[in-house]
Amino acid sequence: MRLTSVDVQLSGTRFTVFYSILANDQKEAEDRALGLAFEQTVEFPIDLTPAGDILERVVGNVESVRKRGDKFLAQISYADEVAGPDAVQFLNVVFGNSSIQPGIRVEKFELNSDMKRLKGPRFGRNGLRELLNVKKRPMLCTAIKPLGYSPADLAELTYKFALGGIDIIKDDHGLADQNFSNFKERVMRSSDAVLNANSKTGFKSIYMPNVTGPADQIVERAKFAKEHGAGGLLFCPGLSGWDQMRVLADDESIQLPIMSHPAMIGSLTASKDNGFSHFATYGQLQRLFGADASVFPSWGGRFSFSKEECEEIVEGTQTDMGNFKQIFPTPGGGMTLERIPEMSSVYGNDVIYLIGGGLHRHSEDLVNNCHYFHNLVESMG
Amino acid sequence: MRLTSVDVQLSGTRFTVFYSILANDQKEAEDRALGLAFEQTVEFPIDLTPAGDILERVVGNVESVRKRGDKFLAQISYADEVAGPDAVQFLNVVFGNSSIQPGIRVEKFELNSDMKRLKGPRFGRNGLRELLNVKKRPMLCTAIKPLGYSPADLAELTYKFALGGIDIIKDDHGLADQNFSNFKERVMRSSDAVLNANSKTGFKSIYMPNVTGPADQIVERAKFAKEHGAGGLLFCPGLSGWDQMRVLADDESIQLPIMSHPAMIGSLTASKDNGFSHFATYGQLQRLFGADASVFPSWGGRFSFSKEECEEIVEGTQTDMGNFKQIFPTPGGGMTLERIPEMSSVYGNDVIYLIGGGLHRHSEDLVNNCHYFHNLVESMG
Repeated sequence: MRLTSVDVQLSGTRFTVFYSILANDQKEAEDRALGLAFEQTVEFPIDLTPAGDILERVVGNVESVRKRGDKFLAQISYADEVAGPDAVQFLNVVFGNSSIQPGIRVEKFELNSDMKRLKGPRFGRNGLRELLNVKKRPMLCTAIKPLGYSPADLAELTYKFALGGIDIIKDDHGLADQNFSNFKERVMRSSDAVLNANSKTGFKSIYMPNVTGPADQIVERAKFAKEHGAGGLLFCPGLSGWDQMRVLADDESIQLPIMSHPAMIGSLTASKDNGFSHFATYGQLQRLFGADASVFPSWGGRFSFSKEECEEIVEGTQTDMGNFKQIFPTPGGGMTLERIPEMSSVYGNDVIYLIGGGLHRHSEDLVNNCHYFHNLVESMG
Repeated sequence: MRLTSVDVQLSGTRFTVFYSILANDQKEAEDRALGLAFEQTVEFPIDLTPAGDILERVVGNVESVRKRGDKFLAQISYADEVAGPDAVQFLNVVFGNSSIQPGIRVEKFELNSDMKRLKGPRFGRNGLRELLNVKKRPMLCTAIKPLGYSPADLAELTYKFALGGIDIIKDDHGLADQNFSNFKERVMRSSDAVLNANSKTGFKSIYMPNVTGPADQIVERAKFAKEHGAGGLLFCPGLSGWDQMRVLADDESIQLPIMSHPAMIGSLTASKDNGFSHFATYGQLQRLFGADASVFPSWGGRFSFSKEECEEIVEGTQTDMGNFKQIFPTPGGGMTLERIPEMSSVYGNDVIYLIGGGLHRHSEDLVNNCHYFHNLVESMG
């Protein structure tokens, strides 16, 4: 029994998603694309879907399906009002149920007017450069660790890193609010350590505590961090939710740059046939949800991203997305000082180099190692 | 330069995670397991990690690595304090950075005392049966749709479903707060519709609105739903974050059963070599984060889960997890009335059958179709 037709109030503007689809031939690819257009909207059998506006305008519209390599690329548009100004529902339309279907991958998306009500990154590349007073060169980042160190132990490291001229000193993403590493004490000690060091160096280093945590404590932790001198926030959207990052970015009482860390996000790019492209995961989605810097594991470290995937990520951080600012790719994951010149050929100047454990190796003197890192990068800017 | 050793305050209790690991031989599997134990905790090179408590107790402990099929199964234990009572940090330890490494999959986890400070599902199987006054038989569920219908249109459907004896009438997960489907109006109208129908049938049907949405509006929407007569909540942890579901479950001013929907979760089980098992994704994690019912696409519908994967899910909803209650597997995704007898052989009585579009097919009379569904299931209980 087909349900009754109704009128739906739609402006006519649409956003577009590009999906890779596994299929044996053009016909099967077109069938799968049409299935997607229904699955992501009305989630109703074609023959039961009400005629008129719902069938013609609420259901996704398959704009094109064409062969690309060993897959097909389908372009599907959706009415802006189906997502509205809600980025979570946007994510749902883009890849809610289809995440459960094999052989569907989101390559990229193109926004129209409606999603632009979202603000995106508060700082972006220019804002962060201004904040840290770094004109042209790449920025430097490291993480305080290991897990198990007390806030006092960690603050000692923070101090040395800042003294050595590291721009951004962030919590390791495993630092939460453990009994041996109390969040508040850590924030106060490491924020103070950076301020002390800055007063000696004249640099504008910042400390970014990890505010990923219980959903009902994230904003509170971010506000505490702001009040106690932290210069930015580390956040893991894969653990605590993409939209929670947007809330942090939008909050007028916080106004701190956000570095997004990929914990638990790996499964999105684990399969070439499912999930999101590297371009979308580490570029577009990060900007949609307000990150100013996007951490990812660079090629040649402990992880397995290829050089091409890293190039895709860079492109995702800077491709035109209307009012959504360009952000910093932040390659890490086992990088060493020796790799910087090679990395530079791909990342250029608009990059934040994240070196963790590797920074402890150059010599026995941590501050000296940081200076070496700083000078190496300074010479490139 | 190895960092200075420090004492860490640890009780000695540990939780355990079982990972499938891709490797060519036992030696490589053991190396990868050891790498995991470091990656998920100190994220530091082995030779730089401070000796003493950090190296011996904070770093994960590889308990065993053995061949299983064409992979290896590694059992790694972590100190309870590394996660503490924070389920988000627990998720991070279990599968934060390792999500980005190929060939690592979480099969299951075993909790110890510390995580038991979490409350888990408020209702669980017994609580939901009591609430809906359904003693033994399977429960019935359907979704109001399609997207594009107004709150009044949808409430008309809700009324018919309740009149026909459907226990749980939920929002389709694509219903958010669109201009054509205002959240508050929808909640009020459909909640009223169910109450009206209940007064005629004597059943205790409930309406579950979808409260997935902007991170800063979820709790508010859930409270509104509670105040206006909704009987439960639909929530998509893949879209809005796992821990936000826990917050809803724990909130004493809400106290409504929660049905978890798998939108955006598909990538966790999309690869046999990455992510989480079906058992963990649709069973254990749902319980850890407070769902009372776990929706998943059953075998034989629009999606691709196998019968064996569905059996695994059932086991995940009921396996012993200490104080975490057993919950209802809720198979859907293109199920029809005709499939119920076959499904019954796998799901037994402790199941919620979710039939959406299929419920419109049996005859032209929707209420009659619901009665048929109800009687079919009643005869099995």
